[in-house]
Amino acid sequence: MEPCFLNAAAAAVRIREKSLTSEALVRSCLERIAERDAEVRAWTHIDPEYAIAQARELDKRPVAGPLHGLPFGVKDMIDTADMPTTYNSPLYQGHRPAKDAGCVAVVRQCGALILGKTDTVEFAAGGRKALTRNPHNLAHTPGGSSSGSGAAVASYMTPLAFGTQTGGSHIRPASFNGIYGLKPTWGAVTREGAKLLCATCDTIGWFGRSVADLALVAEAFRLRDLAAQNPVSVKSLKVAVCRTPYWKQAEPPARQALATAAERLQKAGAQIQELELPARFGSLDEAQRTLTYGEGGPAFLPELLMHGDRLHPEFREMADNQRAVTGAMMVEAYDLAADCRKTFDALFNGFDVVLTPSAPGEAPEGLHTTGDWVFNGMWTVMHVPCLAIPCITGPKQLPVGVQIVGPRYSDARLLEIAAVVAPVIDIGAGQRDASAAG
Amino acid sequence: MEPCFLNAAAAAVRIREKSLTSEALVRSCLERIAERDAEVRAWTHIDPEYAIAQARELDKRPVAGPLHGLPFGVKDMIDTADMPTTYNSPLYQGHRPAKDAGCVAVVRQCGALILGKTDTVEFAAGGRKALTRNPHNLAHTPGGSSSGSGAAVASYMTPLAFGTQTGGSHIRPASFNGIYGLKPTWGAVTREGAKLLCATCDTIGWFGRSVADLALVAEAFRLRDLAAQNPVSVKSLKVAVCRTPYWKQAEPPARQALATAAERLQKAGAQIQELELPARFGSLDEAQRTLTYGEGGPAFLPELLMHGDRLHPEFREMADNQRAVTGAMMVEAYDLAADCRKTFDALFNGFDVVLTPSAPGEAPEGLHTTGDWVFNGMWTVMHVPCLAIPCITGPKQLPVGVQIVGPRYSDARLLEIAAVVAPVIDIGAGQRDASAAG
Repeated sequence: MEPCFLNAAAAAVRIREKSLTSEALVRSCLERIAERDAEVRAWTHIDPEYAIAQARELDKRPVAGPLHGLPFGVKDMIDTADMPTTYNSPLYQGHRPAKDAGCVAVVRQCGALILGKTDTVEFAAGGRKALTRNPHNLAHTPGGSSSGSGAAVASYMTPLAFGTQTGGSHIRPASFNGIYGLKPTWGAVTREGAKLLCATCDTIGWFGRSVADLALVAEAFRLRDLAAQNPVSVKSLKVAVCRTPYWKQAEPPARQALATAAERLQKAGAQIQELELPARFGSLDEAQRTLTYGEGGPAFLPELLMHGDRLHPEFREMADNQRAVTGAMMVEAYDLAADCRKTFDALFNGFDVVLTPSAPGEAPEGLHTTGDWVFNGMWTVMHVPCLAIPCITGPKQLPVGVQIVGPRYSDARLLEIAAVVAPVIDIGAGQRDASAAG
Repeated sequence: MEPCFLNAAAAAVRIREKSLTSEALVRSCLERIAERDAEVRAWTHIDPEYAIAQARELDKRPVAGPLHGLPFGVKDMIDTADMPTTYNSPLYQGHRPAKDAGCVAVVRQCGALILGKTDTVEFAAGGRKALTRNPHNLAHTPGGSSSGSGAAVASYMTPLAFGTQTGGSHIRPASFNGIYGLKPTWGAVTREGAKLLCATCDTIGWFGRSVADLALVAEAFRLRDLAAQNPVSVKSLKVAVCRTPYWKQAEPPARQALATAAERLQKAGAQIQELELPARFGSLDEAQRTLTYGEGGPAFLPELLMHGDRLHPEFREMADNQRAVTGAMMVEAYDLAADCRKTFDALFNGFDVVLTPSAPGEAPEGLHTTGDWVFNGMWTVMHVPCLAIPCITGPKQLPVGVQIVGPRYSDARLLEIAAVVAPVIDIGAGQRDASAAG
């Protein structure tokens, strides 16, 4: 098997055991990119020679951090000192930050190398879309705004990549691309050096092709330090299936994915219960949108003043507050989110984990849309950790995932739960890998 | 009178009326810096020729924005593309960001010129202190972490400067230096490009020497758009005097300042009432410190991994979470802050504005401390706008201020209230100006 088809966790073991070099892995990823990226268009910047040089340097050094020798894709709204950072905006072509974003610095220090920058919706917020296509069907969106990162990991161009989520920019593409993704608890991972949209919601996350991949990166960010761990088994696990207040917007494939995941878990011995959230949770999606618009205005005021009409109308409108979001509306949204955060955490007396849709269905056709984040915004604004797990293949032969959600700062626990539920939920993983590798 | 002694609002009028050029103002500020800064040490970077060149450029252009031709000092933990940004850290000497922080871009686009960078406590957080001295008595601290900005405005080296507040880094130096300062509602001003410490609390603010100065900058940031305005008069104003749960830590000068401000307002016709906050507000200071430490850890993890022992022990300790802040402690602090925000806003049915101490007393002696932020952290974590107003001169001949506080997103209203209460509270303003100008 070509090294590019190895999951991050498997590659890390081989690099540690000296049965694989970082250079061989990177070369394999670069070959895969050369083969596939003309169609998928996941990357905005790749410098093969530089990537190989980085890998060679790492191969000379003793294995230190958990990510030693692993390639990472970086969503192009996250700063890198040695590569352009354009935010996919015409206003920032050729922009090159003076230092790495915090998250990039952390993974580099833990041994990763940055393979390149991945395409994103403009400023990870609106405006122009990424050029990236869904690797499972090029006529479909890979989701957004972390379009390139999701597609790059799914198509075996890189084992790991950063995404971000303010509404549903991380978990939704994970579902559309059939991969794993973790959006950690808000505040647990530095967001310095990622373009600001909404400080209340902006969260850095990462994609991989297994739970173990996500856990490796969590180790780099020391998420394990934040909670004491107990062994987890599916048999003793109480799973709350949450259709959310937005169930009407769930299309048949999303409904089927949720039912299938619950059924598989039940068959494996988990206790399944339904979770109906209190009525006020039904306003969380709107609250997330209000806060993003209301904080996005001040965030894009500099671009409006600097660039005027050259700034995409969606950001001009936001900076000009054309929707007339008032302070009272912001305060109401902040307070609702805070209330729901507290209420949601308290529910975890009755169960261990929440199982809920990742997206309304399969990836929509066309690149004019990246799909709706109605099944994500509520969790983002609640600051809870969300972990995307692939589940079924839909009627259009596209992947459809689910997500598991824990209370705030339970990231380490959520990863342990994911490690036991993922093999039950994602029974197509082996097949997916084999097919892609073949 | 030398132009450097003009308040920003007065200078703006003269520039608009063409009775003053930006160049003349800048030259006067530079002369003042040359005279005073060897002692005060407010600045980490000044380039006189570049400052004059910027001013000349502005003098050639028609007056556009509200800040046209006005010099601005920028706290050196806020990015500037054309000047070094060191965060007062030995790890970032010579660092030069590729783009301006959002707040810097906004004031530049509104006509301001950046006069230079001002000294700060390392990363505006801990570690090494600024070299800046209190211009009223060089043996005393000007406060921190916005040490240089506070001292520069107070000593007439610049009419305006940016500070930031995570605990009490903005309002406290305003009090210690006898100047005005606004810490806006959290989220109302972009914090992009300021070194991250605690996303929940970090707030950009600005200093001036009058309420009108602060209002000019608020106009640039469009804070006026966020609330409908009604005329305010002292006679109809209901003022709630809040000793806070930390009153025991108020030294006699702070107690005297609060009593004096209340008495002056009462004599001017305002209705004064006492506000005793519910008992749980007494845990807000601790909550602010917990959140700063708990979010500061992930924020400084990149520096810890990159620089190891070269990073100041205070940040190593934080990134290593040596105080063992748990997720449960974070959640408790978040939820307490959210609860108090909501409770506090609701209190405003009974009064218009809160009057409360800015600091425990006069500026402490020595540069080993910047004083305590116990009278600031609770307001910062509650996200409410705070406006510092000078009030009395203490027994050591140092200024002591008070602050007025409004509910979230009432920044515009708070500025209107400040405009009528400041002339009543700060009756020494004329004397201070005349003395400094003489």
